[in-house]
Amino acid sequence: MNKKKSRYKSDFYVERVLESDRLILSRAITVIESTHPEDESLASEILNKIMPYTGKSRRIGLTGSPGVGKSTFIESFGKEAISSGNKLAVLTIDPSSLQSKGSILGDKTRMNDLSKDDRVFIRPSAAGQNLGGVSAKTREAMLLCEAAGFNIIIIETVGVGQSETLVKGMVDFFLLLMLPGGGDELQGIKRGIMELADMILITKADGDNMEKAKRTKQDYKNALSVLKSKNSTLPPVMTCSAIDGHNIREAWEKIILFLQAKETSGFLKQNRIQQNLDWMHEIIRSKIKDSFYSNPSIKNLLPQIEADILNEKTDATYAANYLLTHFWNSHTKK
Amino acid sequence: MNKKKSRYKSDFYVERVLESDRLILSRAITVIESTHPEDESLASEILNKIMPYTGKSRRIGLTGSPGVGKSTFIESFGKEAISSGNKLAVLTIDPSSLQSKGSILGDKTRMNDLSKDDRVFIRPSAAGQNLGGVSAKTREAMLLCEAAGFNIIIIETVGVGQSETLVKGMVDFFLLLMLPGGGDELQGIKRGIMELADMILITKADGDNMEKAKRTKQDYKNALSVLKSKNSTLPPVMTCSAIDGHNIREAWEKIILFLQAKETSGFLKQNRIQQNLDWMHEIIRSKIKDSFYSNPSIKNLLPQIEADILNEKTDATYAANYLLTHFWNSHTKK
Repeated sequence: MNKKKSRYKSDFYVERVLESDRLILSRAITVIESTHPEDESLASEILNKIMPYTGKSRRIGLTGSPGVGKSTFIESFGKEAISSGNKLAVLTIDPSSLQSKGSILGDKTRMNDLSKDDRVFIRPSAAGQNLGGVSAKTREAMLLCEAAGFNIIIIETVGVGQSETLVKGMVDFFLLLMLPGGGDELQGIKRGIMELADMILITKADGDNMEKAKRTKQDYKNALSVLKSKNSTLPPVMTCSAIDGHNIREAWEKIILFLQAKETSGFLKQNRIQQNLDWMHEIIRSKIKDSFYSNPSIKNLLPQIEADILNEKTDATYAANYLLTHFWNSHTKK
Repeated sequence: MNKKKSRYKSDFYVERVLESDRLILSRAITVIESTHPEDESLASEILNKIMPYTGKSRRIGLTGSPGVGKSTFIESFGKEAISSGNKLAVLTIDPSSLQSKGSILGDKTRMNDLSKDDRVFIRPSAAGQNLGGVSAKTREAMLLCEAAGFNIIIIETVGVGQSETLVKGMVDFFLLLMLPGGGDELQGIKRGIMELADMILITKADGDNMEKAKRTKQDYKNALSVLKSKNSTLPPVMTCSAIDGHNIREAWEKIILFLQAKETSGFLKQNRIQQNLDWMHEIIRSKIKDSFYSNPSIKNLLPQIEADILNEKTDATYAANYLLTHFWNSHTKK
């Protein structure tokens, strides 16, 4: 945040966000993502004030390995969403964005039609260095979008890390896209992700790919039925194509029906309350860990200790206790 | 630890452990498991002194849901181990032992023949409240057993929680026992555990069960081949019976060959160094977390904050920051 932007008071942000002012919504997210201490207290104020206006959206997590066609899918899936009268926000998390810093423009242009539609808000969310690439900021950006009246939120992430568990922890529905023929495995998609999915879609099921996609669907269905716990329901596995629209509307309708049923049963609300509780503990764990590893004394000692372990000069327990003693000492001295 | 036992100096424990004195080995493990501050510094001394004598065993993790026949398996598997001239230590972790306090005798009697053999040391390891039921103490008990000359270590755990990942992080080989017919699923075994396994054995493959066990083996093989990443090798899946000895020797020999190959390639050593590094960070995370949740100020505030979240009166981020502020304040005041 530069100084000019920081001069706005929290009420200004809150009012404009509630009016669905996209530019100010975007700036508010930037405030929330900022690590500048002044911005942090401003962010906290904004979040507290918008809290009563949040929670009224359908929160959908979407993941899949690079190349599975997430953007193309969101483009056609998103059109289904807005054509049924919804306002859609898409938050994309790209763990590589920390390095490349090039994904912002990339994401906008990848979803060409959606990005031009004023019922749609697309925002690449900063990949945090903590919480496995998803910062707590993604969840807070989602809350801001809800306050701005977006009633369908898609959180898109690349299915290669810990981030999926965390995205699962902030959405109502978790959608996994997979390639026909198991190409995902080559790209390092984790098997554990399948356990999180409420629905699996085999993408690119068109033309010559159709038969392969159908076989892949059957393979996954079989594998899931062997490995799934008996007391849990299997997620639906479907083929789809963003090119010819095959099963895109069906997927959208299935998801909405699923969420309506969860809402009626009260499960949706219960789940969100539990998620909120889990998030609190997750943030605590993450921030305490940060304060350890960013402690000057630890930063100073750690490289030597790690080298000692690599050279088999010291044991884990001894090394951990040594560092912890220095950590707590540095705190009491303050 | 009572006072009488605590009077021994660390050198006494170290000497006797190195002489393979089973009674003192057992007492040394008790010192290590103790949370009494005097014992903790004694434990640290003992561990530092035995460190040069550790690392010379084959470390095998073994898991499976309750009822899969772990003790019976270890009984016949262990006989293979000692009949080829090895000394075997079995550390059993029972997450329920914290409550029942009844597993110590239970474990001893479950492995009837082994427990009478003086080439075998069986010890129920205290289930810690942290690290998902496996305390860092289990790893330290293993190091003591190694110093006492046990060259095959089996760490047994119940396959229902986070403990498996942690056991995987302290062993060279991870063995998963599964029931024929998928009964494990009913007992809540986690699918994710299969990803950790270096070998899967379908137990109770005898008599009428044989056909079912064979089918289960084939089911798991198929499921694994669909879900496994292409660049990793599939773990062998075999049927076995502790009753008639079917495949018990084969499993033992396969494991030893596997470990010898890993040793020759240098992977075993590299893996242990990485495990040691990971353990250090794991202990740090766990101890910092403990100090947060056991902080009197946090213990006092947490119930109300959690209630506020459950009643939707506050958000995760605000609640976390509120508690963290109190936590750090309580430290600087010291």
